[in-house]
Amino acid sequence: MNKKLTLKYLGYLMVIEGAFMIPAMLIALIRTETPATFGFAGTIAALMLLGGPLILLKPKNQTLYAKDGFFIVALSWIVLSVFGALPFRISGAIPSYVDAFFETVSGFTTTGASILTEIESLPKSILYWRSFTHWLGGMGVLVFILAIIPKSAGSGVSLHILRAESPGPVVGKLVPKMRSTARILYAIYIAMTGVMAFFLLTGGMPLFDAVTISFATAGTGGLAVTNNSIAAYDSYYLQNVITVFTLLFSINFNIYYLLLMKEFRAIYKDTELKVFLGLVGVSILAIAVNIWQTGQELCGTFLQALHHSAFQVVTIVSTTGFSTTDFNQWPMFSKMILMILMFIGACAGSTGGGMKISRVIILVKSIFSEIKTLIHPNSVRPVRVGDKILRPEIVHSVNSYLAAYIAILAVSTLLLSLENFSFETTFSAVVACFNNIGPGFDMVGATGNYSAFTNFGKLVLCADMLLGRLEIFPILILFSPSLWRRTK
Amino acid sequence: MNKKLTLKYLGYLMVIEGAFMIPAMLIALIRTETPATFGFAGTIAALMLLGGPLILLKPKNQTLYAKDGFFIVALSWIVLSVFGALPFRISGAIPSYVDAFFETVSGFTTTGASILTEIESLPKSILYWRSFTHWLGGMGVLVFILAIIPKSAGSGVSLHILRAESPGPVVGKLVPKMRSTARILYAIYIAMTGVMAFFLLTGGMPLFDAVTISFATAGTGGLAVTNNSIAAYDSYYLQNVITVFTLLFSINFNIYYLLLMKEFRAIYKDTELKVFLGLVGVSILAIAVNIWQTGQELCGTFLQALHHSAFQVVTIVSTTGFSTTDFNQWPMFSKMILMILMFIGACAGSTGGGMKISRVIILVKSIFSEIKTLIHPNSVRPVRVGDKILRPEIVHSVNSYLAAYIAILAVSTLLLSLENFSFETTFSAVVACFNNIGPGFDMVGATGNYSAFTNFGKLVLCADMLLGRLEIFPILILFSPSLWRRTK
Repeated sequence: MNKKLTLKYLGYLMVIEGAFMIPAMLIALIRTETPATFGFAGTIAALMLLGGPLILLKPKNQTLYAKDGFFIVALSWIVLSVFGALPFRISGAIPSYVDAFFETVSGFTTTGASILTEIESLPKSILYWRSFTHWLGGMGVLVFILAIIPKSAGSGVSLHILRAESPGPVVGKLVPKMRSTARILYAIYIAMTGVMAFFLLTGGMPLFDAVTISFATAGTGGLAVTNNSIAAYDSYYLQNVITVFTLLFSINFNIYYLLLMKEFRAIYKDTELKVFLGLVGVSILAIAVNIWQTGQELCGTFLQALHHSAFQVVTIVSTTGFSTTDFNQWPMFSKMILMILMFIGACAGSTGGGMKISRVIILVKSIFSEIKTLIHPNSVRPVRVGDKILRPEIVHSVNSYLAAYIAILAVSTLLLSLENFSFETTFSAVVACFNNIGPGFDMVGATGNYSAFTNFGKLVLCADMLLGRLEIFPILILFSPSLWRRTK
Repeated sequence: MNKKLTLKYLGYLMVIEGAFMIPAMLIALIRTETPATFGFAGTIAALMLLGGPLILLKPKNQTLYAKDGFFIVALSWIVLSVFGALPFRISGAIPSYVDAFFETVSGFTTTGASILTEIESLPKSILYWRSFTHWLGGMGVLVFILAIIPKSAGSGVSLHILRAESPGPVVGKLVPKMRSTARILYAIYIAMTGVMAFFLLTGGMPLFDAVTISFATAGTGGLAVTNNSIAAYDSYYLQNVITVFTLLFSINFNIYYLLLMKEFRAIYKDTELKVFLGLVGVSILAIAVNIWQTGQELCGTFLQALHHSAFQVVTIVSTTGFSTTDFNQWPMFSKMILMILMFIGACAGSTGGGMKISRVIILVKSIFSEIKTLIHPNSVRPVRVGDKILRPEIVHSVNSYLAAYIAILAVSTLLLSLENFSFETTFSAVVACFNNIGPGFDMVGATGNYSAFTNFGKLVLCADMLLGRLEIFPILILFSPSLWRRTK
């Protein structure tokens, strides 16, 4: 392992986290939220003092192996959360450190699960930081570092990091240079977040809410600054703006790059996009019909049913997890559609979580390929998506991903069952955290939260959120003995 | 497709099913259960008249392709169930044909899910047939046909059928000749069933119960002839005999053949056996401690807790599904262990269901192989189990199996959610039927049954039971267009 280079990256990470805390500190200062000011100032000081010297390291060896990329990403996210939780704890906004850690991991991993029961009374600076963690975690803090660190860091170095931090089975560079790819991604991200905030402002949303909700939507996070999430904004316009942008942020960002390059043909041929939009459309219709038939008290007119269904489907499939209505009351069929969408998740290369549409496509194709092989045992049939033939390694890798995904689901559910809550609570809490959604069903449903779990349960769910956001293997690799063996 | 040969096999199947009904008819005659006598006699007549002429077909082409093997197995099991349900319906024991079909599919697939609320008042001949379906379905009706049909059917013919009907990712022949393999398997099966019945009789169980419970245990089915399953036999000796034999029937039958051949070294080196026994042991201990700590009212002393835990773990992991106690009352941790065991299931080559231990081992190994590949991207590492290197096709096939398994689980749960029962009921009903267990949790728990579902829900669950018993692909292949294309 390249220890010095790893430490240097960690240094960048800490200094940048400190820098990103400055706006929150300023808000605290201006609003004279004194405990929060101390919380931010203290954390910023610690990050700068610890991270600064690490940046100055001059590693002779600039080579980074694939495993170093995974290691840097896994370690960074843990360090990021450990320090990100400090302002909550120091300010007294969240008295328990484990709770503060849970809330921070939930923020950075864009899960949006909360242990808070009362949100609106918290200092604005704290709420700002809480929402900002979504925005930073959505596109990825290491992608941000790649975009800004000096050119001297080679591009081979950074591909492994981008690959480990970005969601989806295959990560392509948009342009040959890694740094430019990272910059383009963040430029699109910042622009879209800004446009969204603008639309919310024009709908009459207060500035603070417009900014924080845009952060939470952009990262497909789901932490709101109100006690009853998006239901607090009793405006169909505002809710629809959020629906539309949530959908936009759960599409592969490559699509926007292609749009800018006017490569419409390539967009039209994108299998993942077509499948995703089809899935969303069918789900919205099915739930709307189901809740509308079940009864007026759930949804009102068919148009209202469509509105709530669209909001809920998009917020779940994007793994955001906002709510406009208590979908826990919906009939089991609608809840089951939402549950299945929780697993499937958003497109690869978006800020969303879950298995990712492209993985699901590859898995379905691999079932069909198996059927064909069984019928014609002597013919070799490669797995195709669109007009591309997938390399067997990718198919194998996606299949192993599914196996690891199921294994983690089983182990976490078993561990969480020690808390002895209902099956629906236990299972949906794991599903909602592991897929980075936020709310589940029953006790952790739209109107519930995660405060009832013990510290043990909360830490299990923190591990799930990190495993989900980093797509399992970077974290698993931390525990592999061969990572720790000396490279000759 | 080789139509004539397929029809000939179907003929054998029908005649043999008819023959197997004769004992039930005799019981009905002797006990003057007149409606049941008519039910059996009518069905036997129909089977003989329809099946007899098919046997006389003389197909010129004796070649059977792999796909024909799947097709024959899938079709046979459907035909078997369609006719097997008739005596229930004709005798009036089960007034609705869909209910009778459900009960029969549940029997043949060794699931043991029941729509009956009152069992003890049914005619004994009907109960005998219901239990016998477990026994026949356990080892497989086509394996039986292979054991008895004239030598003229080539051995290449039958391997495809054995492969399609036998559980597990790889099916090996015990001896070079297919027919001898099938005979050895059935000989071991009959002997073990007999020994079990003997042990039950010595414990004072009535003859009828001893025979039917042995049928249900041998097939790892789970349908009992009493209203409250094995709790009706208030004897630790009897319950322990059932526990031990349930465990024996969920081990790969190859092990018994090796035992007969005195190949102890090969048994000692069997990875699946070791993992299975380890898993069972750990689960029994964990549940015993968990229910014992939770409270006396659940289990009494620690030894009693161990007794109930052992019975329940073995009956679930073997996918039998008997019960001695209402495990629905157990704490969530114990229930979750049982739920995970439901998915894992028994050993390949046994009469049990589920994913099978050997598949789970291959999946776990494939996760480790992926981790190693990520750490050392340029080295190729084959997946090993014990000292064997697995061919990549087998790893791929097991991985596709998992994908198909999850897809079917999702689709069935979604369809069943239209019934609008609780999440625990809906999900565990699908899990219990698809893995051929029988009882689930909540409404379909140890003290519940499947009578509340509509015909639609029951048919969805029937499909799941068949998909589970035949391990998905033979049934999926039925719907593949390339099966139906003419072979040149």
